[in-house]
Amino acid sequence: MELKGQHILSVKDISLELINELFQVAEAMRPYAKRQKVSRVLEGALLGNMFFEPSTRTRVSFGCAFNLLGGEVRETTGLSNSALAKGESLYDTAQVLSGYSDIIAMRHPAAGSVAEFAQGSRVPVINGGDGPNEHPTQALLDLFTIQKELERQGKSINQLSLTMLGDLKHGRTVHSLCQLLSLYSNLKIQLISPEALAMPSEFVDILVNAGHQVEVGTKLEQGLPQANIIYQTRIQEERFKSQEEANRYRGYFRLNKQIYFEHCQPNAVIMHPLPRDSRNDANELDNDLNAEPGLAIFRQTDNGVLVRMALFACILGVENQLKKYERDVNWFTGLRNKPQV
Amino acid sequence: MELKGQHILSVKDISLELINELFQVAEAMRPYAKRQKVSRVLEGALLGNMFFEPSTRTRVSFGCAFNLLGGEVRETTGLSNSALAKGESLYDTAQVLSGYSDIIAMRHPAAGSVAEFAQGSRVPVINGGDGPNEHPTQALLDLFTIQKELERQGKSINQLSLTMLGDLKHGRTVHSLCQLLSLYSNLKIQLISPEALAMPSEFVDILVNAGHQVEVGTKLEQGLPQANIIYQTRIQEERFKSQEEANRYRGYFRLNKQIYFEHCQPNAVIMHPLPRDSRNDANELDNDLNAEPGLAIFRQTDNGVLVRMALFACILGVENQLKKYERDVNWFTGLRNKPQV
Amino acid sequence: MELKGQHILSVKDISLELINELFQVAEAMRPYAKRQKVSRVLEGALLGNMFFEPSTRTRVSFGCAFNLLGGEVRETTGLSNSALAKGESLYDTAQVLSGYSDIIAMRHPAAGSVAEFAQGSRVPVINGGDGPNEHPTQALLDLFTIQKELERQGKSINQLSLTMLGDLKHGRTVHSLCQLLSLYSNLKIQLISPEALAMPSEFVDILVNAGHQVEVGTKLEQGLPQANIIYQTRIQEERFKSQEEANRYRGYFRLNKQIYFEHCQPNAVIMHPLPRDSRNDANELDNDLNAEPGLAIFRQTDNGVLVRMALFACILGVENQLKKYERDVNWFTGLRNKPQV
Repeated sequence: MELKGQHILSVKDISLELINELFQVAEAMRPYAKRQKVSRVLEGALLGNMFFEPSTRTRVSFGCAFNLLGGEVRETTGLSNSALAKGESLYDTAQVLSGYSDIIAMRHPAAGSVAEFAQGSRVPVINGGDGPNEHPTQALLDLFTIQKELERQGKSINQLSLTMLGDLKHGRTVHSLCQLLSLYSNLKIQLISPEALAMPSEFVDILVNAGHQVEVGTKLEQGLPQANIIYQTRIQEERFKSQEEANRYRGYFRLNKQIYFEHCQPNAVIMHPLPRDSRNDANELDNDLNAEPGLAIFRQTDNGVLVRMALFACILGVENQLKKYERDVNWFTGLRNKPQV
Repeated sequence: MELKGQHILSVKDISLELINELFQVAEAMRPYAKRQKVSRVLEGALLGNMFFEPSTRTRVSFGCAFNLLGGEVRETTGLSNSALAKGESLYDTAQVLSGYSDIIAMRHPAAGSVAEFAQGSRVPVINGGDGPNEHPTQALLDLFTIQKELERQGKSINQLSLTMLGDLKHGRTVHSLCQLLSLYSNLKIQLISPEALAMPSEFVDILVNAGHQVEVGTKLEQGLPQANIIYQTRIQEERFKSQEEANRYRGYFRLNKQIYFEHCQPNAVIMHPLPRDSRNDANELDNDLNAEPGLAIFRQTDNGVLVRMALFACILGVENQLKKYERDVNWFTGLRNKPQV
Repeated sequence: MELKGQHILSVKDISLELINELFQVAEAMRPYAKRQKVSRVLEGALLGNMFFEPSTRTRVSFGCAFNLLGGEVRETTGLSNSALAKGESLYDTAQVLSGYSDIIAMRHPAAGSVAEFAQGSRVPVINGGDGPNEHPTQALLDLFTIQKELERQGKSINQLSLTMLGDLKHGRTVHSLCQLLSLYSNLKIQLISPEALAMPSEFVDILVNAGHQVEVGTKLEQGLPQANIIYQTRIQEERFKSQEEANRYRGYFRLNKQIYFEHCQPNAVIMHPLPRDSRNDANELDNDLNAEPGLAIFRQTDNGVLVRMALFACILGVENQLKKYERDVNWFTGLRNKPQV
């Protein structure tokens, strides 16, 4: 596969062919991630999990994915602990750390930093988020989730009607998702946000140029009824010019059970990049949706493990050796595998 | 065993039958913990070691215990690095993190937080300390140490004469120990503390109602001569209403060699939850006791590994498979296994 | 080997015989570190990687070295998270942590702390840097690199002409290197620094007494032409008494391509303890040297892994069992093993 030995720095480098191959491998990872089988295919290999910016979810997801393939993880968290703080160049850091690892996953607060790091690295590098710029594995797991949720409904990606909802101006994840969706054509895509937080025109253009049916709106009712997938992001009130303007939208883009039942298709799928703010004044997904079968937010993070396992396996060229290093699971997994809503 | 698939959240959920089974497994862990044998029974399994509050001892003890069974550990330390700080609910955090682990050990500064987390978790959760509330694995390793130390003296738990000494008002560990001791009856228990730091009456009642012979006092001489086990906790001077009152007790509850030889039975066992403050002005165990065979404080932390290994093994249902995955140790362990006082 | 079961606390304890044996084992580690082979000789063993002072490079290097031998790593970073901050003695910390590990690597900001810790430890301890005092594994990897770089030039250690350059007064690494070089005799050693930052006389004496030809100077031209190895350290301007004095040296001890080609032997080897400060105002190695084959700074950090693997293997007595636990590498390593300048 063309992924062997490659860096994963940007969604812009990813082709449809590559996605299809990657997602097939990701699906093959499910028995290992669900602890129905163990694979030790990467026993002896080392992941350098370099998180120069705090993160629990993404950091642990990368580490877990590598461990599930049998590999070991050496980890760094925080910028202050690092030689970078003493004026070391990213080139030097990469030269040194790549001597300690077989593959590196890296997060860093500065845009472009991971690509700069990759130039000095002697092993493949996966971008785990470089500040406001990109977070390509999130975009891949989002797209994988869209496909899988459509499959659960007996549909294919060609039948996607996706509504992105909330702050579409600042969301790194929705921008990257637009990039990946531009590899397809003739999908229905609704972009619903307050005017002040609309999707930047460059990303709307990408979707339109790809041949999608794009609808832009500011009212929830415009976006919900026709969607089979709803991708919600948080609206931060401090983003508006005035509190007056913020008040106009208050609670309006907060998806809850009442709105869901009133406006959405039965079992419409709800996604979210997480974490969601569950405090009372947050403009996000309500906890009263937690029992809805359409709420896919935790299937989405579970999928992140599958996609990251697939990336590791394909980049290190072991995707066809999984069975060879397979074993039965010998411990109790009953709690994990109980049916999940 | 009834532990299979269970959360360990509180000492209140633990029965005598469960303790007896657990301690038998803990004893069977000794050859692995002492590096006389290696077991790889949990190879491929993942522990999520989630310490949302700083800890070295307990965190490393959990991680080490899981590694000694052949499993892998993904770790998080500190609250600020976590999505919890961005308003994520414990339910969400649990849903996400349980997708990355086979079992989770968790410490958190808020009382009740681990139980709340467990409700959202899809894998078993062990409470590694939830603020002022509980620290059940500490209570279990304390009770296991009491049994083992009595056995070293040719005695059984029925012959226990235990003196708890120091700040009995605020000590989470002595409160939990009272709970576990209430599963037995007719033991001799002395509770010695400054009046202002006495054991809360609810815990005294628990001991009395269980049928123990409980003696409460404020003078060291009342508690030491009849004890075969002394459980010391630190007195913090700032706990008193006035410096004057603090001065009354200064150095009095500090156990040292002179007091030990003057008042205690020969080879009376000294326990302590650790860390002990070894600075000059600390009101704790003196370093001049370090060479005494009765000082059990490091056997106690060693026992923590055995008890945590047993919990992992029993919860994951592999306690009968240890031998099957056993190997010889092929590296030099001479330093470790030299006789320890 | 005499290293079995030993602590590594100071370069002063290291004999020439031990170095020769250690470096032979380090060389045998190359296929594993280069991922030409996997060895699982320490599967089941635990390293306690205790970094009570921040470090990325050294910490990850130790952890990686242990993982490459098949062992597991439990890690602690930072002083604040630790019981040491609550007044626990190093003796207690050592007693506790050594119950969790088969071997411990430790860094701590206080001079002498690691040796004090070792006295309480029940397993071997390697000093990973104790503040201003020592960093013996750095000295060993520096000496190993000197030998290997000379071998690349078809020379032996007896033909060494070494120039230490920069701040020779405060550099822990150059002081330790002087100690190790005193085990040899009749080498050519040039010590070039601003007068105010000269090598302390005790270390000059050590070199002279060992029978080396020592030249001391303050001008670059004195030290570069005759050197086959140049060991550069950073000059910190704030070290000088006045800015006026600092200005006198500004840029002068900064080695760059122009100076290198003007004054140095063809392919003269450049070493540096790293990290190097690559900011514009730093007095160090220029990035314009990055493509020079003589720049050995990343071969030097790579060698750190070999030397630390060798230390672990020799101290744990498995240096003759590597082949027995050897496997083929089954993943793609093409990027790593591309020819490196």
